[in-house]
Parts: sequence; structure tokens; C-alpha cells
Amino acid sequence: MKKKEIIFRLLNQRTQQMILYTTFSYYAYMFEGYLKKSDSNLEKIQSVLVAIGGNEDKEKGLNILKHTVFLTNKKEPYIELITTASSMPKESGASYIAAFEKIGVKNVKIIDIRTREQTKNPEYVERLKKADVIFFTGGDQLKITSILGGTPVLETIKSRYFNENCIIAGTSAGASAMSETMIYEGESSEALCKGKVQLTSGIGLVKNVVIDSHFIQRGRFSRLMDIVTTNPGNIGLGLGEDTGVVIRQGYLLESIGNGLVVIFDGQHIKYTNIFNIQIGEAIAVENVCVHTLVKGHGYNMLTRKYITPSETGGCEH
Amino acid sequence: MKKKEIIFRLLNQRTQQMILYTTFSYYAYMFEGYLKKSDSNLEKIQSVLVAIGGNEDKEKGLNILKHTVFLTNKKEPYIELITTASSMPKESGASYIAAFEKIGVKNVKIIDIRTREQTKNPEYVERLKKADVIFFTGGDQLKITSILGGTPVLETIKSRYFNENCIIAGTSAGASAMSETMIYEGESSEALCKGKVQLTSGIGLVKNVVIDSHFIQRGRFSRLMDIVTTNPGNIGLGLGEDTGVVIRQGYLLESIGNGLVVIFDGQHIKYTNIFNIQIGEAIAVENVCVHTLVKGHGYNMLTRKYITPSETGGCEH
Repeated sequence: MKKKEIIFRLLNQRTQQMILYTTFSYYAYMFEGYLKKSDSNLEKIQSVLVAIGGNEDKEKGLNILKHTVFLTNKKEPYIELITTASSMPKESGASYIAAFEKIGVKNVKIIDIRTREQTKNPEYVERLKKADVIFFTGGDQLKITSILGGTPVLETIKSRYFNENCIIAGTSAGASAMSETMIYEGESSEALCKGKVQLTSGIGLVKNVVIDSHFIQRGRFSRLMDIVTTNPGNIGLGLGEDTGVVIRQGYLLESIGNGLVVIFDGQHIKYTNIFNIQIGEAIAVENVCVHTLVKGHGYNMLTRKYITPSETGGCEH
Repeated sequence: MKKKEIIFRLLNQRTQQMILYTTFSYYAYMFEGYLKKSDSNLEKIQSVLVAIGGNEDKEKGLNILKHTVFLTNKKEPYIELITTASSMPKESGASYIAAFEKIGVKNVKIIDIRTREQTKNPEYVERLKKADVIFFTGGDQLKITSILGGTPVLETIKSRYFNENCIIAGTSAGASAMSETMIYEGESSEALCKGKVQLTSGIGLVKNVVIDSHFIQRGRFSRLMDIVTTNPGNIGLGLGEDTGVVIRQGYLLESIGNGLVVIFDGQHIKYTNIFNIQIGEAIAVENVCVHTLVKGHGYNMLTRKYITPSETGGCEH
């Protein structure tokens, strides 16, 4: 053991990093095999996620809300709005009720849970079992996870997502909260300094991805560069405003709306200083792949392949 | 000719794009050969550029200004400040005189040219012929190019850069103006929509690169994603605040200062919609490579290779 240590210390920094990376890559490869096996469950997912980057049009074209309704394949869909993330739940709820009414959807109700105590109300579970669309509004994603985490309300939503055929939509905080790992804090201007982006567990509808919203408008590229450098096992998914992705089978993305979706893929990272620096120091990284998607373009999160409109057939209806 | 057109129209969009890309790649390859031949001149460049992302420390550590002075290899270097870009040239000039004085440099003068008429003053040319460091302050890069472009003042600076051994430094607008192609306008939140980033010719000290400043702090990633998609022949160089690059021989970058340098390389782009969309529409692009450099890391703009500190030996002195 001591001999090994001595040899390791004799090697220069670059060689050490190559060894660490080779080891990491080996485990990543093993894990990928495991992932693909375990993800054979993904194909069983019939439900569809709609993750929206915030500030979607509620006045004129209403493209994203229309598309969400279209996905239900129902003439008179029933929508439950969860306004837990919002600091102004009444105003937020009312704006969605008005917007959905404009596109002919009248059966829209609000579940405004403000405390964990309120999650015990059995009426909410009953309503969530019947909704065609469960829609998380924006606000603070930590409210969604800290108030709903581990409650029958959230378990009902997850059970419906994984075992039935429904639509779960979320905008801004509602989109960020969807993944297993979720950003809840971190100034864009401070990101890419070790430890400055704060993560926690999301509600866990989709894995191996971290979702960020208001992405172009708030210049959040550095947050997702940071995320995929810290763990290239996650894809970084940056959603612009009035823009979203439809996620089918838990891994197939298709872009909708008028703006940009940005994808960060760290699987080809060749070098980083991240394990040699202190908290607060700047992160060097070589070779993060970045893609942008616009309406009709897609991305396969399992194979990490870009999909052009001629391959998706477009998402227009 | 008509037959060819018919065949071309029969091909689907993706195939057309592949043909266009193959053609583009062929010319890019031919051009690269030409470039490498013509760039054998690069090795003759003895002068050094210092491009700084703005807001460099002028109070405490003064690392970047110290490094700039260090590069002169002189005990009592003579610095000429060009404050043309600034809207408050007196304040700006005074702050640099004070900062350089803190690090023991007393021979600092200001050239504040506000009109093209003033460029005729032969005194300026004489002074610029003698300076060890010519330092462009921040402000508006369009002032630098529109006031100094094509004048003996700028020709003197260029002649000294290409034929002698001096230091040309620039911060913020002063850094952006250094390249042959320069960004002068374009909201980060609107970038990646075709035609929203405005370019013009810079002062032409360094080519095949577009330089952006205040990069992390103002979230400008989308501006350089846009630049390298529009023309992958250019590298996108994003400089954080209190951060810079030393450029040797016109193509070897080394990062200095406390923050991040971000490099965008579009040479491996596989797909983009840019030639199929209208002005104002969002740009889809597959596979832009992004790197970040911190102090002591480097990048070779000719070979497009990342350089780790163990390869540079670090830039500390």
C-alpha cells in the first residue's frame, strides 16, 4: 500500500488526473451498462413531461399551453394547477385559468398547498388521481420539494407519472423541480467557482439531467457548465423563456415554443481542475459539448444524440 | 444546370445541409492550409497582447496590471494610455495612473484622442513609437475603430506590434477591439437569434478570433455561441472581469488574473439551421465545444488545443 502511494505521488499532476479520469471513465462505463439495463423501464413510461423555461405566452399565440393541452388528446381535459412554488398563488393561478380559458379549457382547478399539514387533505389526492394535466407554476422550487417531498400528494403524482398515461407540466421553478437533482440557488456570475451552485434532490420524475429555466434571458450558461463538470453523468438542460421541452419515455426531448433550449453534455470532458481546487476557486474544464435546439429539434438523453427536425418529423400539430 | 437544380431540390433538407457542410468543410480545409502557410508569419511576432475582460483590480493585488508591466522586462517601463473609448477619459486615465503608481510605474501618459482631426497631431505618433506598453482603456469599442481606424496613430501601433517587440494591452472595449472581427452590440438575451449580434472590423492585431469581455458577469455565452455558429473559422474568446489572456505569436493564449476565460470552438459543428432561417429567428446548432481556462491554463488558437498548467509551466512570476 505504501509503495503504491509513493509511486502515485511521484507521478506528475497531469498523469494523476489521467489515472483518476480513466478510473472514473471505467466506472462511468460500468454504470452506463447498469443504466441501460435499469432504464429498460423507461420505455414503459407512457406519461409525458412538459418542462417550460418560464414566462410562457398567456396572451396571444399561447403556443406552449396549447401544445400541453394537445398532448392530452382530449376534447375537454381536466387541469390541476399546483401553485405551491408561487409567492402570489392567487394571481398566478388566475392568470393560468384565464389563459387556458382562451384556448377553450374550462375545467381548471387550483391546489395551493402552503404547508406540509395541508398535504394531508385527502381531497387533493383524489383530484390529482383524475387530472389529465398536473401543472406546476413558477416561483421557488425549494417550496415544491420542501412542502410536497415525501407526502401522499407527491407520491400520487409520481405514481401517476410512472404507471399511467398523464401529462405533468411545469414552468420555471416547476420545471427545475422535475429532475432527481435540482438547482435551487447560484448566481450565474458566481457559477463556475467551485461550490457556488447549490443542488438538492428534486421531485424525481426524470433522471440524469439538471434543468435550468429563464436560461438565455438570465445568462445562466455558467450554471450548467458547472453542473456537467461536477458530474458529467448529468446532462444540463437550459430552457429559454416561452420555450420548453416535451419529454417522452423519460429520455426523449423535443423542443417547443419560440425560443432556445440549450443542452450541455460533459461526457467528452478531457481535463478539469475541479478536484484540485478549493471552494470558491474558478473551475477550468476542457471540452464541454453544447447544443441549441429550437422548435421541432430534439435530443436523446440516453444516447446523447442530437435530433434534427427531419428526424423528428417536427412537433407541429 | 437545370438537371442539377432539380436533383438538389429533390433531396431532403438534411441531405442538402450535409452537402453544403461538406462543401464548406472542403473550403475550410483548403483555407486552413492557406492559413497555416500565411501564418508562418505569426512566429515572427515578438510583441505580446494582453486582452483583459474589464474591471481589473486597481486597488489591492493589481495582478493583471503587475503582469502587464512584468511582460515589458523593464525596470522603468513607459506606458501610454489610450482613453479614446471612454466617456469619462479624465477619470479613467487618472485611475490607471494611480494604479500603475502603486506598482512603481511612474512614466504613464495619456493620449485622449476624441476626434479624427486630433489623430493628425504628430506628437502622438512620436510618443507611441517609444512606449513600452500601449494600453487601451474600456468604454465603447466603436469609438476606438471609428476614430482611430486608418489613421497614422493606429498604423503606428500596428507597425510596432507586427515588427517590433512591445506590449499592447486593452481592457473591456480595448480588448474587444483587438481582433480583426469585433462585436460592438447585441444583448446577450437576444443573441442566438439570427442577426442580433452586430460585428464590424476591429483594429486587426489578432485574427480568427472574436473577443468578448465582462463575460461571466454579464452572461454573454450566447453571443459567442452565435459567433462561432455563424463562422466556425473564428474562435470565441470570452474574458471574465479581472481576468485576461496574454497572446504570444498571435495565437498562443495564456490565462491571467482571478476569473475565467471561456473558449468557444465551432470546428466540430455537425448541424445548424442558420442558412434556413430568417433574421430574428432562433439558431439551432449541434456540437459547439466549450472550454474554460483559469490562471496558468492556455489555448493554442492555430491547432485549437487546450493547454494545462503542467504544459505551460504556469504564468506566475
